[in-house]
Amino acid sequence: MSKRVLVVGGVAGGASVAARVRRLDESAEVIMFEKGPHVSFSNCSLPYHLSGIVEDSEKLVLMSPEMFKNRYNIEARVHQEVIQINRDKKTITVKDVLTNKTYEEKYDKLVLSPGATPIRPNIEGINNSNVFTVRNVVDIEKINSYIKQSNIQDIAVIGGGFIGVEVAENLKLAGYHVTLVEFAKQVMAPFDYDMAQILHKEMVDHGVNLVLDDGLAQIGEGHITTNSGKKMDAQAVVLAIGVRPETSLAKEAGLEIGETGGIKVDHNYLTNDKNIYAVGDAIEVYHRLLHKPTRLALAGPAQKQARAVADHIYGIPSRNLGVIGSSSIHLFDLNAASTGLNARTAEQAGIQHDYVYLMPGDKVGLMPNSNPMHFKLIYEYPTGRILGAQAIGKGNVDKRIDVIATMITMNGTLEDLKDLELSYSPMLGTAKDVVNHAALVGLNLLQGRYKEVKVSQVRELVENNAFIIDAREKGEYSAGHFKNATNIPLSEFRNRLDEIPKDQPVYVHCRSGQRSYNMVMALQHLGFDNVFNISGSYLGVNLYEYFNDLVTGRDKIVTEYNFK
Amino acid sequence: MSKRVLVVGGVAGGASVAARVRRLDESAEVIMFEKGPHVSFSNCSLPYHLSGIVEDSEKLVLMSPEMFKNRYNIEARVHQEVIQINRDKKTITVKDVLTNKTYEEKYDKLVLSPGATPIRPNIEGINNSNVFTVRNVVDIEKINSYIKQSNIQDIAVIGGGFIGVEVAENLKLAGYHVTLVEFAKQVMAPFDYDMAQILHKEMVDHGVNLVLDDGLAQIGEGHITTNSGKKMDAQAVVLAIGVRPETSLAKEAGLEIGETGGIKVDHNYLTNDKNIYAVGDAIEVYHRLLHKPTRLALAGPAQKQARAVADHIYGIPSRNLGVIGSSSIHLFDLNAASTGLNARTAEQAGIQHDYVYLMPGDKVGLMPNSNPMHFKLIYEYPTGRILGAQAIGKGNVDKRIDVIATMITMNGTLEDLKDLELSYSPMLGTAKDVVNHAALVGLNLLQGRYKEVKVSQVRELVENNAFIIDAREKGEYSAGHFKNATNIPLSEFRNRLDEIPKDQPVYVHCRSGQRSYNMVMALQHLGFDNVFNISGSYLGVNLYEYFNDLVTGRDKIVTEYNFK
Repeated sequence: MSKRVLVVGGVAGGASVAARVRRLDESAEVIMFEKGPHVSFSNCSLPYHLSGIVEDSEKLVLMSPEMFKNRYNIEARVHQEVIQINRDKKTITVKDVLTNKTYEEKYDKLVLSPGATPIRPNIEGINNSNVFTVRNVVDIEKINSYIKQSNIQDIAVIGGGFIGVEVAENLKLAGYHVTLVEFAKQVMAPFDYDMAQILHKEMVDHGVNLVLDDGLAQIGEGHITTNSGKKMDAQAVVLAIGVRPETSLAKEAGLEIGETGGIKVDHNYLTNDKNIYAVGDAIEVYHRLLHKPTRLALAGPAQKQARAVADHIYGIPSRNLGVIGSSSIHLFDLNAASTGLNARTAEQAGIQHDYVYLMPGDKVGLMPNSNPMHFKLIYEYPTGRILGAQAIGKGNVDKRIDVIATMITMNGTLEDLKDLELSYSPMLGTAKDVVNHAALVGLNLLQGRYKEVKVSQVRELVENNAFIIDAREKGEYSAGHFKNATNIPLSEFRNRLDEIPKDQPVYVHCRSGQRSYNMVMALQHLGFDNVFNISGSYLGVNLYEYFNDLVTGRDKIVTEYNFK
Repeated sequence: MSKRVLVVGGVAGGASVAARVRRLDESAEVIMFEKGPHVSFSNCSLPYHLSGIVEDSEKLVLMSPEMFKNRYNIEARVHQEVIQINRDKKTITVKDVLTNKTYEEKYDKLVLSPGATPIRPNIEGINNSNVFTVRNVVDIEKINSYIKQSNIQDIAVIGGGFIGVEVAENLKLAGYHVTLVEFAKQVMAPFDYDMAQILHKEMVDHGVNLVLDDGLAQIGEGHITTNSGKKMDAQAVVLAIGVRPETSLAKEAGLEIGETGGIKVDHNYLTNDKNIYAVGDAIEVYHRLLHKPTRLALAGPAQKQARAVADHIYGIPSRNLGVIGSSSIHLFDLNAASTGLNARTAEQAGIQHDYVYLMPGDKVGLMPNSNPMHFKLIYEYPTGRILGAQAIGKGNVDKRIDVIATMITMNGTLEDLKDLELSYSPMLGTAKDVVNHAALVGLNLLQGRYKEVKVSQVRELVENNAFIIDAREKGEYSAGHFKNATNIPLSEFRNRLDEIPKDQPVYVHCRSGQRSYNMVMALQHLGFDNVFNISGSYLGVNLYEYFNDLVTGRDKIVTEYNFK
């Protein structure tokens, strides 16, 4: 008897299960059920239709039911909503959404891949026809045709996660006035606040009206109002607040739901019914670094789960390493990527940690298109175990994050990271890659060779008139400096030691922290006991303060911003 | 008493030792001796002066003696050749090359970083004034001014390693007729022959006259002659055959030389004199995968050695993991990178291995600038331990190689590699990264789930009239196919099984190997016992054969080349 495998939902999770089942068993009967018209589409590419980067929305659809049939002998039934699981009979009840007729299908194994639904807050105007969410090709086509046909100018995007930021970017590229409203103090939760400031600057520099620390209160006629009472023009609203795992089908069937609200699964992605699996955005996964359940709506992990499910159906064991959460985003001229824990999540989880913030060139400086890269490495204290990293820049920042993701999975430490032998040529990198460099700095800190303060601590130092040495050359100093800093270039300090006090803390910075590090080491040897390097240095602090100063109108702590 | 540390030679090795010594000891007396005029320059960027990508050759010089003095209190003496080590007295004898005067300097610790010399074969014309080598800024300035002042057209580059290939590329970009002569059958030894063919194609497509499997026999008036008797116009010749470690100083001082010809050092980069260290291109290092001494002329390892030396002088222990050899190159429109062993070196070392060759898109297919990436993963058989990888493409191929380099250092296996959770967004990659994908294919092969033949085996199959199924659609087939292949698209094969013989081996391919893999799995389940996927598929075989067919004029095994 051939096996009958039914799959609820397509895309990364469901379609991957179906294809792998076919490869393992030519005789299996495999049927996918999808409520909407498309069973396989490029989820992550949806926002790019709004700018025209993906002009033809049909290209977002990767595989048609016909292709599934012809290539894989998989039946993909679209417009079919699975409305009930009958566990005792091992059947599902399906409703044809075009005819409203229902029918039952028997399964040997059932795989749930229903995904997650965009959250719609219960506020005034939420059901207006100009309020949209982004989940599938139909959704993005709706937004696109509405804004183009209505000849509107102002669009509000609510939510600063991946989808919100990408939608805002693509709408801006298409020429609209875009307001992005985010409830938290920053966009893009995978990044720490210091790194997110670089993303904030990129967005405001490209004309996005960025409203942070505020929520959507009301959708009115041609405008929105926020919790703080701000009123902004918006003839269309895109909701990207977050998603809720689709668990209603599972719940009604008595399948267990986890503490995070996702479907609970075991090592093999089996639910509490030994014939029902679940994968993708609807499930709860295990966080490898936090040692607890979490949710993670990403395509890569969904594909891995899908393969594990198909293999388990056929008796092939798989490892389940849990998740660490790696992701990237392209935002106007920047690329940004992150993996593992950031300092905020490590702090919240009570994991002792420290971090390194560096901004070397992404390539050899004299090569064309060499640009600064901002890199933050988070490690456990006192073990030096790598916990996470974030990188932002115009160049190939994602390659550094992928190396760190690899280190995390392989349980690497700073010691391992410093020893990595990575590829290098002047057009593609630097001989000492930033990940090696960050490990060396981290080891110096871990071993107590010198001390540093973080970019977030500098405002207080400046305002309290701390003794700050600017180790850059005079010309750099005069182009912009901390308001009370003393300019003692690295090239002069050995002859100007008498200008440096021994009875108070001394904070040293330069442009990016390299020259000041050398001065800090020398000063320590020369009997200065309380010397700190300013991590991130002038460039980092400028980026950290810029957006906040702009919004709040508060006093700058620098005479001039300098981003070079 | 302050320590006196003398360093012979600058650049990546010597200058890094000096700077780290200063950071560890403000009171140390640190003196670097350099025969030429520049103590610190971007070695790897030298070729880019020839195309004008680095227009001003002074920019190649990174640090002047004045900067070393002012910033680091390091004395950098240029035009000073160290001509003798007097180990009994712990002094060196130095010759001022401008005045020819000699003098002695005492050391507590001596660090040798003399580098390597370009090899000059003993042939007719080798000492002509139009014959050049590339080692430093002076060399590259000489070439550049000669070819520009002499108004020449044809230049021969001898040697297809990094320097030769980069020099050829930059001369071509500058508009010269360039011939590259390489003794081996391929350029760029870190790559296997199959991958090197992609580099060969890139060079000939950009107009480089590529002469392989041939050596320089004679340099005549306005031409060169090769071993095979070819005569080619060349009003200038750049020798890039290879380098020889500079060991004369060490040898004369009775320091031990290793079996590979480099200075022999211990775990701490100490020579057999406990006060003399050696680093960089002049030394012999230990290969972590081959378990034997080797030489590796790369900047990254030199910097790591330098740090270890400075640390050891001050009693700080360092690990010495040996080397794996990671490198990258930018070549016209391609990037290429490699790490660890290739299949050839694994074979030579007698290490049981197999490999996977894939060519997925480097980004989501519907994104702008998505391009195929060629990726080869080498692993140990039967353990699945990762041994090496090579990647070539227009995009960020180096990030995949850096992930593999990390896996090698962390002793990763295919099982680990498949589980890596890497960053993804459609503009920067694919949800299933090529490294995950390659691991899955490798595991399939390792576990015997299906069999494959390699691109290098296809010519014989075609010429011997093997049964080859082209699983692509009809339109793809008619745009170019293997000469005796039978077109049975994946979308039709289940209805055309009677066309497939059961009594002989069946070889299946498509464009890149994905569709054919699915067909192979199905055929196996359907009772076909001897089915093989053609690794690399049509695209890979086309690239593999193209350059050779071009040069030899032999029969193509395809009706049309197809590189898309």
